[in-house]
Amino acid sequence: MLANHLQNGSETSGLLWSRIPNAEDPGGEFDPVGLSKKSDGTNGVESLDYEVIENYAYREEQAQRGRLFVIYQVAVKWFFALLIGVGTGLAAVFINISVENFAGWKFELTFKIIQHSYFAGFILYVLFNLVLVFSSVYIVTQFAPAAAGSGIPEIKGYLNGVEIHGILFFRTLIGKIFGSIGSVGGGLALGKEGPLVHTGACIASLLGQGGSKKYHLNSRWLQVFKSDRDQRDLVTCGCAAGVAAAFRAPVGGVLFALEEVTSWWRSQLMWRVFFTSAIVAVVVRTAMGWCRSGKCGHFGSGGFIIWDISDGQEDYSFQELLPMAVIGVIGGLLGALFNQLTLYVTYWRQNYLHKRGNRVKIIEACIISVLTSIISFGLPLLRRCSPCPEADPTAGIECPRPPGMYGNYVKFYCRNDREYNDLATIFFNTQDDAIRNLFSAKTVHEFSAPSLLSFLVMFYTLAVVTYGTAVPAGQFVPGIMIGSTYGRLVGMFVVKFYHKPNIEEGTYALLGAASFLGGSMRMTVSLCVIMVEITNNLKLLPLIMLVLLISKAVGDAFNEGIYEEQARLRGIPLLESRPKYRMRKMTAREACGNQKVVSLPRIVKVSDLVSILHSNKHNGFPVIDHARNGETLVIGLALRSHLLVLLQTKEDFQHSPLPCDTQSGTGIIRHHFTEFVKPASSRGLSIEDIHLNSDDLEMYIDLAPILNPSPYVVPEDMSLTKVYNLFRQLGLRHIFVVPRASRVIGLITRKDLLIEEEDNEDSDTVELQSTSVRGQRRDKTTIGNSEIEDPFLDHSSRQNSYRS
Amino acid sequence: MLANHLQNGSETSGLLWSRIPNAEDPGGEFDPVGLSKKSDGTNGVESLDYEVIENYAYREEQAQRGRLFVIYQVAVKWFFALLIGVGTGLAAVFINISVENFAGWKFELTFKIIQHSYFAGFILYVLFNLVLVFSSVYIVTQFAPAAAGSGIPEIKGYLNGVEIHGILFFRTLIGKIFGSIGSVGGGLALGKEGPLVHTGACIASLLGQGGSKKYHLNSRWLQVFKSDRDQRDLVTCGCAAGVAAAFRAPVGGVLFALEEVTSWWRSQLMWRVFFTSAIVAVVVRTAMGWCRSGKCGHFGSGGFIIWDISDGQEDYSFQELLPMAVIGVIGGLLGALFNQLTLYVTYWRQNYLHKRGNRVKIIEACIISVLTSIISFGLPLLRRCSPCPEADPTAGIECPRPPGMYGNYVKFYCRNDREYNDLATIFFNTQDDAIRNLFSAKTVHEFSAPSLLSFLVMFYTLAVVTYGTAVPAGQFVPGIMIGSTYGRLVGMFVVKFYHKPNIEEGTYALLGAASFLGGSMRMTVSLCVIMVEITNNLKLLPLIMLVLLISKAVGDAFNEGIYEEQARLRGIPLLESRPKYRMRKMTAREACGNQKVVSLPRIVKVSDLVSILHSNKHNGFPVIDHARNGETLVIGLALRSHLLVLLQTKEDFQHSPLPCDTQSGTGIIRHHFTEFVKPASSRGLSIEDIHLNSDDLEMYIDLAPILNPSPYVVPEDMSLTKVYNLFRQLGLRHIFVVPRASRVIGLITRKDLLIEEEDNEDSDTVELQSTSVRGQRRDKTTIGNSEIEDPFLDHSSRQNSYRS
Repeated sequence: MLANHLQNGSETSGLLWSRIPNAEDPGGEFDPVGLSKKSDGTNGVESLDYEVIENYAYREEQAQRGRLFVIYQVAVKWFFALLIGVGTGLAAVFINISVENFAGWKFELTFKIIQHSYFAGFILYVLFNLVLVFSSVYIVTQFAPAAAGSGIPEIKGYLNGVEIHGILFFRTLIGKIFGSIGSVGGGLALGKEGPLVHTGACIASLLGQGGSKKYHLNSRWLQVFKSDRDQRDLVTCGCAAGVAAAFRAPVGGVLFALEEVTSWWRSQLMWRVFFTSAIVAVVVRTAMGWCRSGKCGHFGSGGFIIWDISDGQEDYSFQELLPMAVIGVIGGLLGALFNQLTLYVTYWRQNYLHKRGNRVKIIEACIISVLTSIISFGLPLLRRCSPCPEADPTAGIECPRPPGMYGNYVKFYCRNDREYNDLATIFFNTQDDAIRNLFSAKTVHEFSAPSLLSFLVMFYTLAVVTYGTAVPAGQFVPGIMIGSTYGRLVGMFVVKFYHKPNIEEGTYALLGAASFLGGSMRMTVSLCVIMVEITNNLKLLPLIMLVLLISKAVGDAFNEGIYEEQARLRGIPLLESRPKYRMRKMTAREACGNQKVVSLPRIVKVSDLVSILHSNKHNGFPVIDHARNGETLVIGLALRSHLLVLLQTKEDFQHSPLPCDTQSGTGIIRHHFTEFVKPASSRGLSIEDIHLNSDDLEMYIDLAPILNPSPYVVPEDMSLTKVYNLFRQLGLRHIFVVPRASRVIGLITRKDLLIEEEDNEDSDTVELQSTSVRGQRRDKTTIGNSEIEDPFLDHSSRQNSYRS
Repeated sequence: MLANHLQNGSETSGLLWSRIPNAEDPGGEFDPVGLSKKSDGTNGVESLDYEVIENYAYREEQAQRGRLFVIYQVAVKWFFALLIGVGTGLAAVFINISVENFAGWKFELTFKIIQHSYFAGFILYVLFNLVLVFSSVYIVTQFAPAAAGSGIPEIKGYLNGVEIHGILFFRTLIGKIFGSIGSVGGGLALGKEGPLVHTGACIASLLGQGGSKKYHLNSRWLQVFKSDRDQRDLVTCGCAAGVAAAFRAPVGGVLFALEEVTSWWRSQLMWRVFFTSAIVAVVVRTAMGWCRSGKCGHFGSGGFIIWDISDGQEDYSFQELLPMAVIGVIGGLLGALFNQLTLYVTYWRQNYLHKRGNRVKIIEACIISVLTSIISFGLPLLRRCSPCPEADPTAGIECPRPPGMYGNYVKFYCRNDREYNDLATIFFNTQDDAIRNLFSAKTVHEFSAPSLLSFLVMFYTLAVVTYGTAVPAGQFVPGIMIGSTYGRLVGMFVVKFYHKPNIEEGTYALLGAASFLGGSMRMTVSLCVIMVEITNNLKLLPLIMLVLLISKAVGDAFNEGIYEEQARLRGIPLLESRPKYRMRKMTAREACGNQKVVSLPRIVKVSDLVSILHSNKHNGFPVIDHARNGETLVIGLALRSHLLVLLQTKEDFQHSPLPCDTQSGTGIIRHHFTEFVKPASSRGLSIEDIHLNSDDLEMYIDLAPILNPSPYVVPEDMSLTKVYNLFRQLGLRHIFVVPRASRVIGLITRKDLLIEEEDNEDSDTVELQSTSVRGQRRDKTTIGNSEIEDPFLDHSSRQNSYRS
């Protein structure tokens, strides 16, 4: 029945978010298993309870707790920030060790075998990759469908206020971790950094709700994180932790969370996010120190993602700014092209290929794996080896590199001992090592232009094709690969024509990497800091800034950033930070369109409520009451989810159509506040789930206790730009559009908000003495100021006189 | 008369900001010259026009311009960002070169003379310092009183929405630059970094209004930056540029602007601030490259503030975390104590000492200068010299340092050639060099504990006493001095007891510096990034984070950050990011108190308007009109400043009490939009300035064209916490408190705000065709949706029927 309502489609007004283009599409990356159970057509995209729950039940909870509880709450928040840091750090270490070991075994074995037969080595290489990729795609398709892709667009959506079903599940976390190991270890043209952000977010969210549904902690702990805002804050911490762990860039992580993922930000949160990032840095460092002794197999030598170029170029001249600007332009163009191509490919996949089920996805990933293996093994074979350069003992770089070691000058299919294959050095290698080689200083003329060009074309194509397969996939490392390749190409040109001794090709490779990421992701400050942190060279900061500025500006001329594009394609309706130009000329009323507002009375008959909830899919309902003089008054907002809880528990049903506070002396709230909170990983109640008998339907409910008594309102002819800013900056989910006011009771200005905190002891005792918020609130009201027209107050007194 | 009204004090409701404790005090740091002219008792603190001007005049301007103008506007904004970067960078270079040269001459001469006579050297040293400090305090007191202090609290206030008269004047800029040179060159215990932030802000503000009042650029340029928001954005850029220039820390600059100074932040702005910082980095680098050839005198060897410790400690063990935590705790305690002591000293100065006029201020600064000179010269004399350590050729540090050079191991009052004076190494030196020596690696046991302790006590005392004198003064460098001293002390302890080979005392000095700044300024991410950027060592990042976390937490247990404390003392009412706990239980109506709202009718008689403006000091007035059915309707907000412009120009006066749009066919707006904008450096109009004859007083004004037709409204019983968030996050200045609505016209949800941009060409032509906003707006209204109750529409039709 719900599905029928949705199919009508026209009745979705007031619903927080109902359907957007492509959202009805049951295919796409979100289709399988976990999601295909749902048949309501919303494709798993639903809205969050974005507003802090603020009804009386919540307020009573708050008041009963007092200040000590607040301190306890803060302590727990910090403890959770610590746990998130530790968890994400350990996950990152686990992924890195696994990937490095798989890749290490693979290359060790292959290099051993190709001493005897290149063909046998090739077969082994292909099979090894295939098995890893197959394991990854199998886990993802069969077990954790939401783990596919990078996850950053989804997390962005979540923090913007849209929940995509399944992204924060426990099995998504597992799928992400093991899927990453398979896909990255299997040598596909993708990275493990985006998935780590998602991993961090999952860990944070699961911690916040006390483990998966199956492993609840005790309820005392849970109470602390029952509001959606707390949950979102934790996920923000998790994102920052993910970046911090992925790149060992703690400051970059904080900035990434700030710039890229969160929609609104409080400075209190920054501090906590910062702490989490610092913890991650300590955990990762400790683990690496432990591994240095050789206990982690191949990990010790390969190590984490840092590409240290602190011994690189020290200085730059003004002449070099021109080729650097060229790199910026190339980055903007190639980045924008990348976004556009992946958009087409993903669209095609979503609408044609992936509709055919999981088997097609698995076959697709395996084909791409084989293709990648063939190209990365075969292309270097076609390339003739170059003789090693004159040995420079100060540089400490051996040519060819000793077998079984990581480094430059890979000997592959060469006849002489003192030769190396430049294409194999970047292609037949893990991506981390390839980037290290491309960034390396003191290796002028290591690579030839044809090798770099052919690698650029092939890898770019592979990256585009690989993007969107059903495996966890990040875009950072492929982006750095692509960028550093053309960067190094430009660097070779500069070295050749500028005749300066201190120019390093590796510096240009770094700038190229920054430019491509800037052109594709359109991040600014955070990307800049991440690049500096991963290369451990602060001196290049102004150059990275320059290149990023250019590449972002060029890219913005063509399309949006890759995360925004992908989010739109996946049907995640992000509210951008800047209102649309069109909104300047629209009013709030026009934005509502010709929707019909469905209001509820304060005391509603159960049967009426059920039929209203059945008849539409609105998520919020204005509640209207009558004031003493007979006029109507809007007394608040009732959320569908809360109404459903009332209907399900039946505890608040009453026989008389009178307000509850006049009849029962036992207190107003029969519900515990936590009952109203939907855990992040469940789907929540639906009206279909509720079964009422005919007696129940004849009862009444007083909605006053569950109302949000003062939702934000805007006058009907307010400019939509202003409404947009209000909505987004305060992270709202509902705004009431109301008629212009007839009078102004007061003006609030800066002066009125400069209230000094009253003495701590006083407020503490007040809180502890009072047991009911309502009572307390009334006290305050009368003390503070005369004649406040509290509709509830009016109502109850009216009802009292009514009875007497 | 105005002053009388203020003295009554009770009539200040509705006034944006009127008086706060200490604000009536005509003394304090703001007293002299420029400010003492004003006698209205507000001590120069006034509110900004925080809201974007949004009346019809503005809208018409906007509409006439179209999209091409928007592009032009954006281009100009970026060009200004470039100019701010260049200007601030050059100012920083100028200040640094001057300071280094003055200090260089001073020490060179003194060292020459003390070869013969220590007494003569001492006299020269004292006199040199005295002359520099006198020049600084003379400039500040006689010419630019607002240039005293660091300026950061004032800039914070400005960006929070409170304007302090004079802080962005041209002469403040001049006073700041030359005053800094004198006070820092004169060896006082203060820094040039805070003033550089102020300098950057001044440059930005002056550029934004096209130079000082005397040097206007053409009006075409000016139009672009007429809104207060643009002006604030420029000042934000200027702040970031100041930090970037002061510390050569571009990312730190962006984060400082983000975390510390701005109250609200848009991600679009981040990008522009980032650009400005990058420009500063390039300018400073270029200048330093130019100076390297020796063209800048003593500057070449001393250089900018960077204390490179990239060759310092590489690694740290878990055992070291304990002494590091101890450093954090000490930093928190000493920082909080510093804030408290400076608060007392400033309070005393403001209320007793500085009330006595400029001569007292000059004498005070001179006494402190002589005192500082005596201590920094005399204390090392009492200290016995130590023998030089065994020469370590790899470290490249000479002992004693060659005369005329900068470095460790200063020979001062020593008998033997191979001896140095450890106290003179830090005390009898520029602060930059002292810090470099304290941070230096490979100099274990250079300093003795008694020397460091006595230096710590003396310098701490000097810093407290110096803070608040009438010279430009930053707290960064003194803070780093203090912190690195006790940090090095702890480091000595660690070296002694831990028996580890790779521990460097310099690392602990750095951590100490971070901890003291954290304990005093309570910044987090930005401070961390600045510390990393100035030491050029990313490896210590997690440790700096840890220390900052601890010191900030410890400090927060005692008092607020130094900028907040000082802002409060100076009467700058900052709205903090977190609403007060008390507000949870207050409603919007209670916040208004028992203020009387003064409303205006739409058509107001000039004499009435004048008497209303005379009778109170409100800055905003609700405008009430009558709808068709006779009910009153709030149609908008009129700002006092706009009303004053109307009264002054008299162009809008009309004889009939009918709306203007019904009588004149020529168009509604007679004013150019720019007339309504008050330049940042002027005091604006006052009702006293306006002289009207009796004929004028009998005329009428239609306020509709100058209204802000839809100010934000809140229902009267909304929780004050919500109101606070609305006010602060949107940067408002007025909120109307209105009665609860009687009905809900519509609900705006996420879905309603997901509007796709219409085709560019279409909107362009629409804009170019329409010449009047009013007409256009009405078109839109009727197209969009039926029956919008536009009060103006009603009114004019009513008036039309009235006439016919």
